[in-house]
Amino acid sequence: MLDLRRVERLVELWLDEDIAHYDLTSKIMIDPDADGRFQMNAREPMLVCGLEVAAMVFRRLDSQLSFEINQQDGTHIEPGTVIAAVSGKAQAILSAERTALNLVQRLSGVATETAKYVAEVAHTKAAVVDTRKTTPGLRMLEKYAVFCGGGRSHRLALDNGIMLKDNHIAVAGSIENAVRRAQDQAPILTKIEVECDRLDQVREALDAGADIIMLDNMTNGDMREAVVMVDGRAKLECSGGVRLDTIREKAETGVDYISVGRMTQSAPCVDIGLDKA
Amino acid sequence: MLDLRRVERLVELWLDEDIAHYDLTSKIMIDPDADGRFQMNAREPMLVCGLEVAAMVFRRLDSQLSFEINQQDGTHIEPGTVIAAVSGKAQAILSAERTALNLVQRLSGVATETAKYVAEVAHTKAAVVDTRKTTPGLRMLEKYAVFCGGGRSHRLALDNGIMLKDNHIAVAGSIENAVRRAQDQAPILTKIEVECDRLDQVREALDAGADIIMLDNMTNGDMREAVVMVDGRAKLECSGGVRLDTIREKAETGVDYISVGRMTQSAPCVDIGLDKA
Amino acid sequence: MLDLRRVERLVELWLDEDIAHYDLTSKIMIDPDADGRFQMNAREPMLVCGLEVAAMVFRRLDSQLSFEINQQDGTHIEPGTVIAAVSGKAQAILSAERTALNLVQRLSGVATETAKYVAEVAHTKAAVVDTRKTTPGLRMLEKYAVFCGGGRSHRLALDNGIMLKDNHIAVAGSIENAVRRAQDQAPILTKIEVECDRLDQVREALDAGADIIMLDNMTNGDMREAVVMVDGRAKLECSGGVRLDTIREKAETGVDYISVGRMTQSAPCVDIGLDKA
Amino acid sequence: MLDLRRVERLVELWLDEDIAHYDLTSKIMIDPDADGRFQMNAREPMLVCGLEVAAMVFRRLDSQLSFEINQQDGTHIEPGTVIAAVSGKAQAILSAERTALNLVQRLSGVATETAKYVAEVAHTKAAVVDTRKTTPGLRMLEKYAVFCGGGRSHRLALDNGIMLKDNHIAVAGSIENAVRRAQDQAPILTKIEVECDRLDQVREALDAGADIIMLDNMTNGDMREAVVMVDGRAKLECSGGVRLDTIREKAETGVDYISVGRMTQSAPCVDIGLDKA
Amino acid sequence: MLDLRRVERLVELWLDEDIAHYDLTSKIMIDPDADGRFQMNAREPMLVCGLEVAAMVFRRLDSQLSFEINQQDGTHIEPGTVIAAVSGKAQAILSAERTALNLVQRLSGVATETAKYVAEVAHTKAAVVDTRKTTPGLRMLEKYAVFCGGGRSHRLALDNGIMLKDNHIAVAGSIENAVRRAQDQAPILTKIEVECDRLDQVREALDAGADIIMLDNMTNGDMREAVVMVDGRAKLECSGGVRLDTIREKAETGVDYISVGRMTQSAPCVDIGLDKA
Amino acid sequence: MLDLRRVERLVELWLDEDIAHYDLTSKIMIDPDADGRFQMNAREPMLVCGLEVAAMVFRRLDSQLSFEINQQDGTHIEPGTVIAAVSGKAQAILSAERTALNLVQRLSGVATETAKYVAEVAHTKAAVVDTRKTTPGLRMLEKYAVFCGGGRSHRLALDNGIMLKDNHIAVAGSIENAVRRAQDQAPILTKIEVECDRLDQVREALDAGADIIMLDNMTNGDMREAVVMVDGRAKLECSGGVRLDTIREKAETGVDYISVGRMTQSAPCVDIGLDKA
Repeated sequence: MLDLRRVERLVELWLDEDIAHYDLTSKIMIDPDADGRFQMNAREPMLVCGLEVAAMVFRRLDSQLSFEINQQDGTHIEPGTVIAAVSGKAQAILSAERTALNLVQRLSGVATETAKYVAEVAHTKAAVVDTRKTTPGLRMLEKYAVFCGGGRSHRLALDNGIMLKDNHIAVAGSIENAVRRAQDQAPILTKIEVECDRLDQVREALDAGADIIMLDNMTNGDMREAVVMVDGRAKLECSGGVRLDTIREKAETGVDYISVGRMTQSAPCVDIGLDKA
Repeated sequence: MLDLRRVERLVELWLDEDIAHYDLTSKIMIDPDADGRFQMNAREPMLVCGLEVAAMVFRRLDSQLSFEINQQDGTHIEPGTVIAAVSGKAQAILSAERTALNLVQRLSGVATETAKYVAEVAHTKAAVVDTRKTTPGLRMLEKYAVFCGGGRSHRLALDNGIMLKDNHIAVAGSIENAVRRAQDQAPILTKIEVECDRLDQVREALDAGADIIMLDNMTNGDMREAVVMVDGRAKLECSGGVRLDTIREKAETGVDYISVGRMTQSAPCVDIGLDKA
Repeated sequence: MLDLRRVERLVELWLDEDIAHYDLTSKIMIDPDADGRFQMNAREPMLVCGLEVAAMVFRRLDSQLSFEINQQDGTHIEPGTVIAAVSGKAQAILSAERTALNLVQRLSGVATETAKYVAEVAHTKAAVVDTRKTTPGLRMLEKYAVFCGGGRSHRLALDNGIMLKDNHIAVAGSIENAVRRAQDQAPILTKIEVECDRLDQVREALDAGADIIMLDNMTNGDMREAVVMVDGRAKLECSGGVRLDTIREKAETGVDYISVGRMTQSAPCVDIGLDKA
Repeated sequence: MLDLRRVERLVELWLDEDIAHYDLTSKIMIDPDADGRFQMNAREPMLVCGLEVAAMVFRRLDSQLSFEINQQDGTHIEPGTVIAAVSGKAQAILSAERTALNLVQRLSGVATETAKYVAEVAHTKAAVVDTRKTTPGLRMLEKYAVFCGGGRSHRLALDNGIMLKDNHIAVAGSIENAVRRAQDQAPILTKIEVECDRLDQVREALDAGADIIMLDNMTNGDMREAVVMVDGRAKLECSGGVRLDTIREKAETGVDYISVGRMTQSAPCVDIGLDKA
Repeated sequence: MLDLRRVERLVELWLDEDIAHYDLTSKIMIDPDADGRFQMNAREPMLVCGLEVAAMVFRRLDSQLSFEINQQDGTHIEPGTVIAAVSGKAQAILSAERTALNLVQRLSGVATETAKYVAEVAHTKAAVVDTRKTTPGLRMLEKYAVFCGGGRSHRLALDNGIMLKDNHIAVAGSIENAVRRAQDQAPILTKIEVECDRLDQVREALDAGADIIMLDNMTNGDMREAVVMVDGRAKLECSGGVRLDTIREKAETGVDYISVGRMTQSAPCVDIGLDKA
Repeated sequence: MLDLRRVERLVELWLDEDIAHYDLTSKIMIDPDADGRFQMNAREPMLVCGLEVAAMVFRRLDSQLSFEINQQDGTHIEPGTVIAAVSGKAQAILSAERTALNLVQRLSGVATETAKYVAEVAHTKAAVVDTRKTTPGLRMLEKYAVFCGGGRSHRLALDNGIMLKDNHIAVAGSIENAVRRAQDQAPILTKIEVECDRLDQVREALDAGADIIMLDNMTNGDMREAVVMVDGRAKLECSGGVRLDTIREKAETGVDYISVGRMTQSAPCVDIGLDKA
């Protein structure tokens, strides 16, 4: 679910921002021929994520570096676990260290957070889905981390689906008009979702042929009613106010998807260190 | 403290990841001539940050958009405050909305978190400084957010100072040798910092002429001893285990700087919405 | 349906390939202060397309050039019609001329060709849709030209929908398994299409819950049967062997979409000249 | 005649437009470890062209893919001929397939069309030359396809020769003045061509020392006269109204070059498929 | 003779290398609202060159800066002359100062040096021409400086003409074969030059139809003989060992062109300062 | 001291400017399968510099080329010395030749010039340091050449140290205020230098806590006084009017650093040729 070719340019950007000219310390202090071997160690429990990307970061500084991945992305690990090992020229390893760690700590943080939400709803049919509330520049990677944590993608980007909100419906005159306009003009493999605040809008969206209906900040009671009303003729997405302590009850209303912005916006980085092996 | 020319490429990257082809919903549903006016509203207390960058995001989609900044970066605001207003073609505004919000929510989150640490040590001489533990691709912006929150920059990048750690000292044979080598080869406007775990190392670094000595994971007692020993002949930086509930006591040891990775690594995004005005 | 921001980089690329160093003739022969006014004239009947992009080409060489569009994209015009006029520094206009014309001639060619297919099926419910058989580097622009000609987009790119073919079905074991796997893992706003050669596959795809079923190189008789069998529970796309002289009969089978690679792969450029006004 | 280094950026651009995020179908449906072998098969007679570029497209997605070229660029082949074979990870092959085919189908189309024009004039001394009427973004590649089809390059770009037209001559006051100005200022390895509509202009251009004289939309009778008049002291290029059914007679007038815009502007793509081997 | 669009990317590159993050001194010390006015002053006699490019450098940091050019490129000026003035935000002016000066000092140095060579040969028909011995990254700009100094371009780049040397002739078997091959395959607006060490080669190149014959490191006596032998049927270029104290005699042999690598390779920068106005 | 990853983009830029389309001569005249072996030969005494970069230039055109470095960067060599050898496809070698030589000739020129300055002051404690007066686009490489010649870096770029000049001090009100402001806001690993014209300013800068004091265009007498006054409490840099014939006496005043713009601005290229082996 990750296109490594596209990640290459990000790796370049990240290294550029840490090494505009040259890594003063490594170039001055480390013998260019000196070899080293270092391990990436988990310092707290986590779902690890982003190791192939870390490998790209290290290898971009020296294509001869060897990077061994011990724990596949999405694996739950305990503190002390050796996640990966990198060996080769010490100069390149030390220059890449911080960038690689920053990336893996963040992606693992997102995957770990996602898994907590997923665990809460495992007994229901609801899937945890992400949003477009991602870190600028890391969209693709954070959605991948959500996937590794057991979540699913909502839409990847603005050209990946139609989402009709208040403004669009107001312009079109009615939900029916809005959905028809979208059906007539969107690329034919694109689904159409309508954001609804009230049950009568849900009815209208259903009749208009919406593929997915978003229940936006509705009460659990209303969501249960929506589930009954729609009866499988469209997918239902619960959105708004989703937290770790509220998601279970929302999932139990019978909705198909629950979208969570917090997973990508506020997951703390996990602690991982690079230590001499 | 922000070079907007360099931010341009980031803005392009962020928009690219959300609009690879075209924004299906806006292009299909919104009349290209329709105008709109929207406000960016704070939904929780925060230090706002990143508004000039948000302006660049909006204007990149339509250079005719007007973006008015009501609250300068670094200002503390209460929920309900109108932070900024954007007006012009609705199509462009709606396409840029999510990217602009994602950015401001994150930077404001970092600034807000920083201010909490700064407040804890305001009665001491210690400055709160950032680290290189930043989000890949947002280094410059997150350091700017730290600045807006009252913190200071440690080094901007690997070519912005010399930091001697275990590995370097081991290679050089001694702290003295390591510092001398750095003094001989670094660009002459560069300072040299030595990472120390023990008081005898602090002594050695001081004698070697280190500009800054990092007290890494030392007890508050040892840090107090270091302050006495160094007596202003070098700067002292406290590092490791710094949290909101521990920073005050560390600052009171008399160190000059306290570096905090958490401010940039784990600050939650703050809640900001874009509403029709 | 065209994101002009993304077209900017293409304009740069096109100008680069025609002006690697400088336009020898214009720079040497034309006074840098000389002004001129030129008209873009149709030399055959056509649907014109690409004028905003042409404007970008001219203005990239001199942002002060004035470019007036007389005929909107998608308009049918007769030979002799003045499509647009450009005025300002003659040096810049003459340097940009060929690149601008090359682009408009090609896009207008695609729009004109598309309109012919669309006219053939206007009496049916079938929509003419494009394919991914586009000129490398012009995907977005050619799909826009199809839109201007009255056609619709199939999927914009490989991340814009799921298309299950032989290989995928073989790997999954059955159409049912393949569709289920796609439903479980695709971004939730993505539709799923299954390519079928035979009616029993159509049945299987329908039962599996495919959103769209492609009838690949089927006889018109089989397509009529498929229409009856599916009865609106999925969309049907006719593909393969579609030419101007065959599309009418295919449309009359009752399918929803007919995809045509030829519109983008083999539409001849139309003749347009730039003449002194 | 093709600089593969420069083609790399085009390959990147083409893949970007088809894979903005990731290839949904291949990533979801194909096992990342699954291998496959596919053949590129000709489905109509053609001169094949662009295989090294196709190889670059495939290898850009997976540098481990093996791409064997069975038919060299410029070879005439019959339907059913296996042009090339690609083997390795199926995921990468299927993701690159459409982009690679789009390119080869177009370049082979141009080469095939060129060969038809070349065949028409083979008994004369006239060379078929291309123009700057190429597809934006594919200049270099289409000129290479013309070369593979037996044609020659006119000028590669605006900085590759001087072409004096009406406007330039009007500005300079006379053909003589225009040619002299060009001779005085152009890079010394650059030839100068003058576009002429009438025989008296041909005389003037010849006297002025033009290297090449373009006979623009002249009658065959006038062209024969021009050939006699010039008598080898300059090269003569026939331009305008050149079609497959008119080129032979034009060539028989004795001109040196005949330029054909249609070869690159309106050559239909040839049919090539990628089939499981 | 300078395509400013193409220079934009160079300006970006130059600013990037001086401002990787932000200009510490200007951002910290200068009030962002403070205005200033500065003059670019000549500190020695020179031919000034590169002012439009300097304007681009300043304006790239602040598009509102005003840059007035007092002395056109190619003008000879005396020490103390005000070359240009820039006014607007002082922060931007001070950040751009060094980059702008570095560029103008170098280009003016090349123009000034070129003018010295040109003056030496002004009484002959020989033109001073540049070579491809330019500073990597500044090809286009240094050739422009040569032009401003009264020199001419040889070829702009490797795709701007054919230059046959020993290796090529050896491969082809003879000068005649080599020239014929080039005539048959080069773009038709391209001239062909042959490098000759001896008079018999000059004869052979002339007979083969070379457009230009390079007399490489020949004695002045031999060059005079070559002039007589060729008698205007080809152009003659003198190359090798050209210095300010040798060029006059070489020019007096009657050759058409004298190429000088030193003008671009070893011209010292001239002294120009930016002073508060 | 050279980050080869960052040099890659420069290599691409340099090759682009010499090969916009394709190298006409090599592609037409040289058999694509022909191999060759060439040597890079010194034609005058020099300190050689830039060989790894030259290797990158050659290998960018053909990754299979073998490039053997016989003389390490910074080595003094005599005329006739074989510096390096390149072997492989002749087409690629000949296309890259000029670009590679242009680079090595310039960097070796800078290294050679630097060594002359360094030799003059070898008996003193003064280090020769570079400036930001470098060739636009070659900053990093020229500073590397200075390093190879025995010199040191001043600051790499505007974000690599604080340099307080007249303007800054005027704005701040006094040297003391200016230094304090810089100390309060600069990244903590950054040193602060103050430019002084007079001894009383030196005193003020010293008292303010400047890390380095620049003695700008001071007499040798004043510099000696400054050395006595400062007595090691800050570093002293001599700047202005430094030439090969003046540097010795300046160094003997006891300053720590002498900065020389001429080394990078006006070092002539050295003569190096590529000859068939």
